[in-house]
Amino acid sequence: MKRAVVLQTDFGEGNVSVSTMKGVCRIVDPTLEVFDSTHSVRPFDVLKASDALFYVIPFWPAGTVFVSVVDPGVGTSRKSCVALLENGSYVVTPDNGTLTYIKDRLGIKQVRQIDETTNRYPTTRDVHIFHGRDVYAYTAARLAGGVIDYEGVGPEYPVSQIVEAPYVKPRKLADEVYGMIADSSVHFGLVTTNIPFRWLAECGMEYGDNVNIRIENAGECVLEEVVPIAKSFGFVPEGCDLVYNSETSMIEVATNRRNMVVERNLGDGADWTLAVRKA
Amino acid sequence: MKRAVVLQTDFGEGNVSVSTMKGVCRIVDPTLEVFDSTHSVRPFDVLKASDALFYVIPFWPAGTVFVSVVDPGVGTSRKSCVALLENGSYVVTPDNGTLTYIKDRLGIKQVRQIDETTNRYPTTRDVHIFHGRDVYAYTAARLAGGVIDYEGVGPEYPVSQIVEAPYVKPRKLADEVYGMIADSSVHFGLVTTNIPFRWLAECGMEYGDNVNIRIENAGECVLEEVVPIAKSFGFVPEGCDLVYNSETSMIEVATNRRNMVVERNLGDGADWTLAVRKA
Amino acid sequence: MKRAVVLQTDFGEGNVSVSTMKGVCRIVDPTLEVFDSTHSVRPFDVLKASDALFYVIPFWPAGTVFVSVVDPGVGTSRKSCVALLENGSYVVTPDNGTLTYIKDRLGIKQVRQIDETTNRYPTTRDVHIFHGRDVYAYTAARLAGGVIDYEGVGPEYPVSQIVEAPYVKPRKLADEVYGMIADSSVHFGLVTTNIPFRWLAECGMEYGDNVNIRIENAGECVLEEVVPIAKSFGFVPEGCDLVYNSETSMIEVATNRRNMVVERNLGDGADWTLAVRKA
Repeated sequence: MKRAVVLQTDFGEGNVSVSTMKGVCRIVDPTLEVFDSTHSVRPFDVLKASDALFYVIPFWPAGTVFVSVVDPGVGTSRKSCVALLENGSYVVTPDNGTLTYIKDRLGIKQVRQIDETTNRYPTTRDVHIFHGRDVYAYTAARLAGGVIDYEGVGPEYPVSQIVEAPYVKPRKLADEVYGMIADSSVHFGLVTTNIPFRWLAECGMEYGDNVNIRIENAGECVLEEVVPIAKSFGFVPEGCDLVYNSETSMIEVATNRRNMVVERNLGDGADWTLAVRKA
Repeated sequence: MKRAVVLQTDFGEGNVSVSTMKGVCRIVDPTLEVFDSTHSVRPFDVLKASDALFYVIPFWPAGTVFVSVVDPGVGTSRKSCVALLENGSYVVTPDNGTLTYIKDRLGIKQVRQIDETTNRYPTTRDVHIFHGRDVYAYTAARLAGGVIDYEGVGPEYPVSQIVEAPYVKPRKLADEVYGMIADSSVHFGLVTTNIPFRWLAECGMEYGDNVNIRIENAGECVLEEVVPIAKSFGFVPEGCDLVYNSETSMIEVATNRRNMVVERNLGDGADWTLAVRKA
Repeated sequence: MKRAVVLQTDFGEGNVSVSTMKGVCRIVDPTLEVFDSTHSVRPFDVLKASDALFYVIPFWPAGTVFVSVVDPGVGTSRKSCVALLENGSYVVTPDNGTLTYIKDRLGIKQVRQIDETTNRYPTTRDVHIFHGRDVYAYTAARLAGGVIDYEGVGPEYPVSQIVEAPYVKPRKLADEVYGMIADSSVHFGLVTTNIPFRWLAECGMEYGDNVNIRIENAGECVLEEVVPIAKSFGFVPEGCDLVYNSETSMIEVATNRRNMVVERNLGDGADWTLAVRKA
């Protein structure tokens, strides 16, 4: 059973550059299976890239080779690397902060810098702006197809040297949990945090309880209200807000059948925080 | 030959949740082929979900396993089911109206409620908002991969109990056909109805004839004009309207090389109707 | 090893029509691999379709069967054809200008008109608006799956008769290169031309040199400035413009970390030109 290659980029859906990444994988090994994860990572946002990887990796078979191309520094001195995760999967990416959450939460066993003397698509030596195709997809396909083993990627370097992007780490206090809004997608308008949902129970907040939520942007309160903890949207009336367990077992906040992100003008990233405490 | 799994959702293109649905399919069976159909179903619109399924099912091999996740009631009491169609294909979906057109037009042989004690991804028991991944994709993959047979889905219930969403059924009168605007996509601006194109001939309206079309929104006339029945767009001058046979053999209306939906501000759904009669 | 089928259209990402094209391929041959390249070609723009093909073809295995459906004249008298390229790959497309760049730059060995008496999906004979599914995907799948050989497509006609769309051919003068802006995507805001990057060196302009760039729209100067030739974005400060080698080895212009297309209101096509000369 060959490993599959799974691609994420910030190129936008339907970008032909992604097509060439798939094609190069198939040139390396015409039997390789290549999947699109997302190409809608916010451009240049390495923390979003990290979050998207963290979100999907646990739901793919161990051993899958992920490629992430969010690479504002392409062609400059940032390292290109392949991380071997605790679960046996791989991430091929620029070492520019994209591995932040993977290192913190999923665990990285080993990391190797890609040796571009061997692991670079031969006909594109004079192109310096698309390592996604010429280095990352190419190396991922060689690894997934068994052309090289993990040692063949290039020299190992210490996991501790992996570049980390700054973010707000979640905190659990006696009766309050606190963390960052990691995502505020406008599609359904859900607000996803990096606070583990099980912390609520550990602080004595259970399904059915009303809790106080407070969202701040750059330290200023944007929203404060009392809402129930519910199992899913349909357990509160239409138009009502709720706290619930996200797909990745994090605290999420939403308005049933309405778009909380658009209606309340919410954002995400290191400037946006959520606190939840007993009402 | 294994059955393929084909996914549709209202999550938006490039949503990472879709990636985890694919991943879970591959965890169940690493040789399974999983295709994206569309992830642009209008959010929460089960009738659109039904229309999209109706559109694609006849053009995939009999036996294909379709997954549809348009699920505003996720986590509440609506049933999760797998329908076995007349043509041997399957639809895995919440039983919330998504099967409306499939039952009416393609035919459902049998329906079974998913038994979540066995057909639920084991590690996500505490997550209540993403049955698309944890129940539907997982069950579809088990069925497509032969881990379970159709009986293994769960208990059968009467096809007559399948939830149907209300819509305007098409009618054929002596010299007029009438029905609902099922889709008014802004991309090309085509107006698709649920009226079979062959009804025109049965009412004595042939290619080359001029016919009177009348579009109403909530009973009020929005557009009334005389247009030709043509084989394709290029048979009328640029900027002219025409009636023609759609990809699924329904009556469709459009403006050649222009966007009728945007220019005439048209919509779709149970409030929008089209009547065609001899001019 | 079977040939893969790679699809591009102007239908928009997530259009269910694309899903039926994939499904028809799988009906023809249930083991066939079908990839999405892009469905975001500008509607009706055959030159964009040509550019997208030119961009991706060299990065897929020789022998791949590409399908391009940008077909404003669907159902009228334009030919449907399959071109056999110099590298052994195939393009299945309406002969409406889509092959322009392929003929000029990649080389076409032979072209055959599709014989629709055999190469048309049987159940859709009365549908005249979706040759993408009924003729192109169907024929591509038959060719890729080995149901027909290239001769089985239909009668050959002279490559010289292939329809070409008008465009501005690039020119190399003593100290200046000149050509068309082929693409100005708003996603990253990069400006892609049809001028080979190596022409700069042939005119004595090297990495590190400052050069004068001049963009004209319909003969009127829109932007004129002196910028460096750099290897990649990160070699100039944020907010600075640069000339560099594109992914397909053409001259490209951009602003590091900013969106040049949006900020300077740039377009593409036969009305937009770029000249680069020594500063």
